[in-house]
Amino acid sequence: MLGPGDDAAVVSASDGRVVVTTDLLLEGRHFRRDWSSGYDIGRKAAAQNLADVVAMGADPTGIVVGLGMPADTGAGWLDDLADGFRDECDLVGASVVGGDTTRCDLVVIGVTALGDLGGRAPVTRSGARPGDVVAVAGRLGHAAAGLALLQAGLDDPGGLVDAHRRPRPPYACGPRAAILGATSMLDVSDGLLQDLGHVAKASGAGVLLDPAAFTVTPEMEKAARLLGADPLEWALSGGEDHALAATFPREVRLPAEWTVVGRVTEGAGVQVRGRTPERGGWDHFRE
Amino acid sequence: MLGPGDDAAVVSASDGRVVVTTDLLLEGRHFRRDWSSGYDIGRKAAAQNLADVVAMGADPTGIVVGLGMPADTGAGWLDDLADGFRDECDLVGASVVGGDTTRCDLVVIGVTALGDLGGRAPVTRSGARPGDVVAVAGRLGHAAAGLALLQAGLDDPGGLVDAHRRPRPPYACGPRAAILGATSMLDVSDGLLQDLGHVAKASGAGVLLDPAAFTVTPEMEKAARLLGADPLEWALSGGEDHALAATFPREVRLPAEWTVVGRVTEGAGVQVRGRTPERGGWDHFRE
Repeated sequence: MLGPGDDAAVVSASDGRVVVTTDLLLEGRHFRRDWSSGYDIGRKAAAQNLADVVAMGADPTGIVVGLGMPADTGAGWLDDLADGFRDECDLVGASVVGGDTTRCDLVVIGVTALGDLGGRAPVTRSGARPGDVVAVAGRLGHAAAGLALLQAGLDDPGGLVDAHRRPRPPYACGPRAAILGATSMLDVSDGLLQDLGHVAKASGAGVLLDPAAFTVTPEMEKAARLLGADPLEWALSGGEDHALAATFPREVRLPAEWTVVGRVTEGAGVQVRGRTPERGGWDHFRE
Repeated sequence: MLGPGDDAAVVSASDGRVVVTTDLLLEGRHFRRDWSSGYDIGRKAAAQNLADVVAMGADPTGIVVGLGMPADTGAGWLDDLADGFRDECDLVGASVVGGDTTRCDLVVIGVTALGDLGGRAPVTRSGARPGDVVAVAGRLGHAAAGLALLQAGLDDPGGLVDAHRRPRPPYACGPRAAILGATSMLDVSDGLLQDLGHVAKASGAGVLLDPAAFTVTPEMEKAARLLGADPLEWALSGGEDHALAATFPREVRLPAEWTVVGRVTEGAGVQVRGRTPERGGWDHFRE
């Protein structure tokens, strides 16, 4: 409604509420300019915030960007970054409505995304009930496999490296899940086990996952062979694909984008059938 | 309506629109931890964003904070920072509704503030018309004088040093100016001359300021004597007090919080009566 160039922008919030989420991304910690182009970084920085908005069941409307960068950052790189922001927002009908730039020794990107619930109740993390099914939409473990390849100096299979550079959140599935009656939902940014641990804790319930329900693609298998890794581990613990995980009452007929991977149980914590919680570092195994 | 702890927060936007603004603050560039406490930094980071919201004529509703900080940052410092955010928000009835924290070698603070126009049109920078009066509310030059004192190793007059550490934007004046019929408004963050230059440019008009209209307090005079500086210079060019500057039709009767300091003219750029634009670095003197 009023874009960049004033003290603040004005964005539509048609139902009298606005969904808001923010993330801070740091060079070296969240991205590397030698591994990702400015365009990829813009796409990814926008994607991870837009995914948080749809995970509430809302439609993204706009983002604002705070950008710190070194004085010698090329204008081309900055244009690429802005193009990445714009193109990712275009996927969901949102716009870059404002920003702030400053000099900094490293590239720092703060993104805040806004969304509109269209009259729906927000889908939080706390509504999962024993008996609900647990389902995921979008890719799991691809970005983690891609990052592991880059860390090993490899760039093949390229599809996985691309998945690290540019996540593809299943945006449309978020608002649709709200309409279908999802009882809880979040975007998988820190790994499915850890993130479902938040749902379990907030809902006062447990989650039991079926390892056979997870898809391992030929690319994932190839990467796992190359690196001596377990592809299921990437799917369960890898972050940054920004898949959606949600719980639904058993009777809901789920569209093809959703894969049922487990169920909500009495109790607490997240269990994977047939696996012992061998890695003590996972918070979600603590009761 | 829904606070921290989920993928995103939900904030009221009662009239179907939301005002949004963001700023990125960096240690060493925007604040120093040896000059300002965590509490002061939180107050100031919130203030500068809340001031942008009221400068649109809106009432602030909430802020989200992205925070990067070194691993050795004390918990006490972080608590102080959060207290500062909360107390500054309390001044305007807003809340801290969400955030994101990450490790970083320096302290990085990204703040995004939201606001509600309550059915009013946003007051932009582009509506100033020749014949309007130019008025300011809040302090001018105090923060700049305080910073100059700190840079000279002084901490007296303490009121000015405090003004640098903790601005006091005249929050209530923003929405009230919109109701009074302000034709343009902004918050003075980069210095009055420079910021009014944005109004002049966006409005296709000029601004003529009366140097005699500016208040120079005894503290400012004392600091100027100590540092061999010109207090009027601080008032005209100093940033970070987050005063409000607005233009109003001549017939508007202004409340006491506003001081008329000039008028909108035909032409372009910002002039100060009796002063030649001796410092070439000021963008706003270019036609």
